[in-house]
Order: sequence, then C-alpha cells, then structure tokens
Amino acid sequence: MKPICVDVCGGDHAPGPMVRAARRAADQGVPVVLVGPEPEIRALPEADGLDLLHADQGIPDSVSPLDAIRKAPRSSIAIGLSAVADGRASAVFSCGASGAIMLLAVRILGLLEEVHRPALAVSLPRPGGPPLLLLDAGANVDCRAAHLLTFAKLGVAWAVASGLGAPRVGLLSNGAEPGKGTAVIRETMGLMGDLPASFVGQVEPHVALAGGCDVLVADGMHGNIMLKSLEAAVEIVRAHFHLSRAADARAEGALADLAWSRFGAASLLGVDGLVFIGHGRSDEGAVLHGIQSAQRAVQARALEGLRKALGLRCRP
Amino acid sequence: MKPICVDVCGGDHAPGPMVRAARRAADQGVPVVLVGPEPEIRALPEADGLDLLHADQGIPDSVSPLDAIRKAPRSSIAIGLSAVADGRASAVFSCGASGAIMLLAVRILGLLEEVHRPALAVSLPRPGGPPLLLLDAGANVDCRAAHLLTFAKLGVAWAVASGLGAPRVGLLSNGAEPGKGTAVIRETMGLMGDLPASFVGQVEPHVALAGGCDVLVADGMHGNIMLKSLEAAVEIVRAHFHLSRAADARAEGALADLAWSRFGAASLLGVDGLVFIGHGRSDEGAVLHGIQSAQRAVQARALEGLRKALGLRCRP
Repeated sequence: MKPICVDVCGGDHAPGPMVRAARRAADQGVPVVLVGPEPEIRALPEADGLDLLHADQGIPDSVSPLDAIRKAPRSSIAIGLSAVADGRASAVFSCGASGAIMLLAVRILGLLEEVHRPALAVSLPRPGGPPLLLLDAGANVDCRAAHLLTFAKLGVAWAVASGLGAPRVGLLSNGAEPGKGTAVIRETMGLMGDLPASFVGQVEPHVALAGGCDVLVADGMHGNIMLKSLEAAVEIVRAHFHLSRAADARAEGALADLAWSRFGAASLLGVDGLVFIGHGRSDEGAVLHGIQSAQRAVQARALEGLRKALGLRCRP
Repeated sequence: MKPICVDVCGGDHAPGPMVRAARRAADQGVPVVLVGPEPEIRALPEADGLDLLHADQGIPDSVSPLDAIRKAPRSSIAIGLSAVADGRASAVFSCGASGAIMLLAVRILGLLEEVHRPALAVSLPRPGGPPLLLLDAGANVDCRAAHLLTFAKLGVAWAVASGLGAPRVGLLSNGAEPGKGTAVIRETMGLMGDLPASFVGQVEPHVALAGGCDVLVADGMHGNIMLKSLEAAVEIVRAHFHLSRAADARAEGALADLAWSRFGAASLLGVDGLVFIGHGRSDEGAVLHGIQSAQRAVQARALEGLRKALGLRCRP
C-alpha cells in the first residue's frame, strides 16, 4: 500500500509531535512517509526506520499563501502533494497554513471537474450520534451561491463516500424562519433543489449539532467562526475545570457559569432608547438576568453615557 | 424611578418565566411594568400588585419582521417601546423576535444621529476577566465596512458608558495574518483609524475570549454564528455531564471527547487527491488522529467514492 505523506514542518509545535505521531501510526501498521528537512528529522530517535522525503523547508504561517508558494517552491507540502500527484503516495497530512496548502493542492493536484473552488470539511463529533460534516471550514471566505451549492454537492458526495447512507444537508444560518440568512444564503436556498440529497433548509449551529442535519454547508468565514467558537468554548470549559479540580456538583456549577445563553441579554444599540433583547429560549433566571441588565444600564444612565461617548448632545 | 417594561409575550416559554422573573425583580426593588394581554397576566398569581400595560398580543416568531409589524400594531413590544418613547418607562426587555423588535425600535424610538443601522451587543462572560462585548450579534446579516465601523463606535461608546475605561477593539475574523478576513473585513481594517479607541486588528473567537480585546465587532451573521456556537458547545458539554453524572476525572474525560480541535483533521475536498489539514495547534494525539483519518479515507477509497458520488469518471 502506498504511504501517507506526513508533513513534519506544518503546525506550531513541529516537528516533534508530527514525527512521534507518525511513529505511532507506523507501529500500528499505517504506511507513512515523513516529509521535511532530512538532517533535522534524522536527529529525532522516533524517526528511526521511517521513510523520508527530503524537503528544504515548510511554509511559514506569517506570509500570504501566494508569497509562501513563490518563496518556498520546494516546501514540505509541495513535495508531499507532488508525491500524491505522481502516484508515489496515497494522501498528504499537514498542519500547515491551510491557504497555502489549498493553493498548492489546486496547482499540483488540479481540481475535480465542475469544481471551481475546493472546500475544507471537518467532521465534528456529536455525542450519541454520527459526526456532523461541516464545510467549508475556512478555505473560501467570500462565496457566491454557486460555490455553496458546490460545497453541498461535495459534502454529500463525501458523506456518501464515508459510508453515511442518505445524508441530510443544512445551510448554516442564523435561523430557519423566512427572511433569515444573508443574501447569498437566501439565494442558495433556491439552488438546493439541484442537490442529490435531502435538504433541510437553513440550520443554526445548535440544531445541526443536535442532529438536525448530517452535512452543514457554509462559506469559509461562517464555517470557520462556528468551528473556532466551538473550540474556544470547550477550551474555556476545560481551563475552568483545570482551575477548580471540581467534583461533579462543582463542575456543574462551573459549567452553569459558562452558559452563554443565560447571559444573552442583548442591548440594541443605535436607537434612541434602552432596549434589551433576551434569548428566545430564556428561562426564568435568564429573564431575571435580562431585567437586571436593563436595570444596571438605567441606573448607570448608560444611554446618556453612550450619547456622550459618541459626541452627541444630551436629550432635554 | 421610571419602570422597566417587561414584555411578557416574547420567548418560547412566555408568559410564565417573564412574569415570575419580573416578580422577583420587583421584590428586589427594581421598578417593573408588565406589558401583555391583561386577562392572561392577571390570572397568574405572581403578577399580583405589579403594574401592567395592556397589549393585545405579542409578535409571533414565525412571520417576517415587516409582516409582524403590519399585523400587530398593538403588540406588547410596540406598547413597551412607545412607553419608553413617551418617557413613561426607562427601558424595554423582551425575549421576542429580534428582527421585529429592531424594526419597531427604529420606527418608534428613532435612530441616534450618524447611526444608520442599530446593532445587537451581547456581553459574553470570561472567567477571570471582564466580559467581552460582541456586536453585532445578529441584527444585520449583510453589512458594509461603514456599518462595521459604526458598530465599533457604538461598541466603544457602550463599553465606555458601562465603565470599561479604555476598551480595545477587535474585528472578528478567521485569523490575524495578512490576507485573512472577507473583503468587507479587510476594507473595514482601513477605516478603523477613525476609531476613538485602541484597535487590535482581526481577532479569532478564542483570542477574543482569552482577553485579546474588549469589544469584538462583527457583522450580524458572523456574530450570531459565534454566539450560537458557543452556546451549542456549552449545551452539549452540559448534556454530556448530565448523562454521565461523572466524577471529576470522568468529567475531564468527557470534555476530552468534546475537544473539537482534536478532531479537526480537515479534508480538502475538490482537489483530485486526498489532502488532510490539521489544526495549527495540533499536539501529538491530534496529528495521530489526522493520520488515522487519512488512513481510513485511503482504505475506504474515499476519493474514488467521492468521484463516483459526483458522477465523475474514475481515474485510470
């Protein structure tokens, strides 16, 4: 079986974790080939006996994708992609800069027919159910409706290819009611009849994660913000735990502190009066919190303060 | 002191939680006035002795904001807003449909000078630090750069008005490097010199939540997706806890299961080859996971499956 190219240059902690992980994969019988600077890699004991493709350098995160490609023609990711293009390797794994990887992959591997832009798909675990396939997770920040339709087709095809029988497709949005979504999302709604799968319409993050669909389609900015926000929340929860070393009851208390929806009393800014909007799913405590927020703003004369900070004159 | 109007019609569980919360607020000395259908409210014992403004109905979530306004001219939110406009109340709190509330607020209260669109700001708790002010959290899904600048000005003004001395402002995006962000976000970068506050540039969700800025500016779709994703993550973590009734160690295990970033091996779909991209902050386990994902895809002949599902011919 052809090996999987493991780019040991990409990622903040490269190359140590990449090499050690490749070693463990190899020990489990996965064919791997390391791609990166030979002297540096050979100095690591875990690399002993692993195949290696020499590459001069990785692609630094700090430069633009196009510059990265121009300045690093013999980068580890380019070498790895070329190995796949030449049929010497089966796949590439890299923790490098996704923009540069995408540009290089398009150039070296080419695009599938009828695909104009590749998309990044991530598989999000869902407790008690199959994972949710989210795409695009960050490759294309500005998308038109036709791109989203392509992502949906790619996602359905990938889900089917991954063994998920009849995937249901949703379009990431801020709600399911008429009028929700950006202009592009609403336009995409009209194209989804072309999809060879069941389409469930616009879907909010929590609905998708609760099983509302199997493939969640988004432009790269929306998908990226969803993904990174989920990560950030879990990171914060974990840090919270780590601090408290709490027992079960105290852990639940800590999580309650982090219930974003309970602090969701939103201030409507820009109108000439104090308006607070709570979450549609507010319980009693949330409503009380909203009222208290309003009260604090009133007591602080927050509207006057707002006007003043904006350089507006005070109301008579 | 003028009372705060509590709309008892808005929200999925109205009116019970709204009335009970208003009762508790009143018991704490907060002046409140309930707004909603008098007979229904008076039937609730918690409403005893509370002031009431009669409104025929709420605004249903299921119709468009414009229709809601046309069809419900005497809605609870319109009555509440009018009370603020007339100087009979100090603020409005509602869990109703935010789009309809926004349109009505603009109509009844008017806009502040130099503001063309109001924004929804939410205050996100941050363990061990001041909250993060996120705006727009969902009011304006399609925004131009000038709108984002206005939101930034509103946010700074609101933060200052709330007692936060010198707020640092960030622009919600998918990264901080050059070339990140949508076209609108990049255009907004050029306008932020006009801001009467320190501007820290483009900021990812986890950076903002870790203290990278105090005011996080976004269009309503980006802000809404971030907010709802944070909520969804915490909701899932809590459900997980509830199921497991775990002790501390097991709780940490459960959270590890939910570490989105550890499952973040992204498949680059649309290129003619298998490409997987890991998280820049991947540790050893994450890299191993990425490699295993690649391996599973290879073993499943996922690219061939993908081509087939797309109706493309197989490679020779």
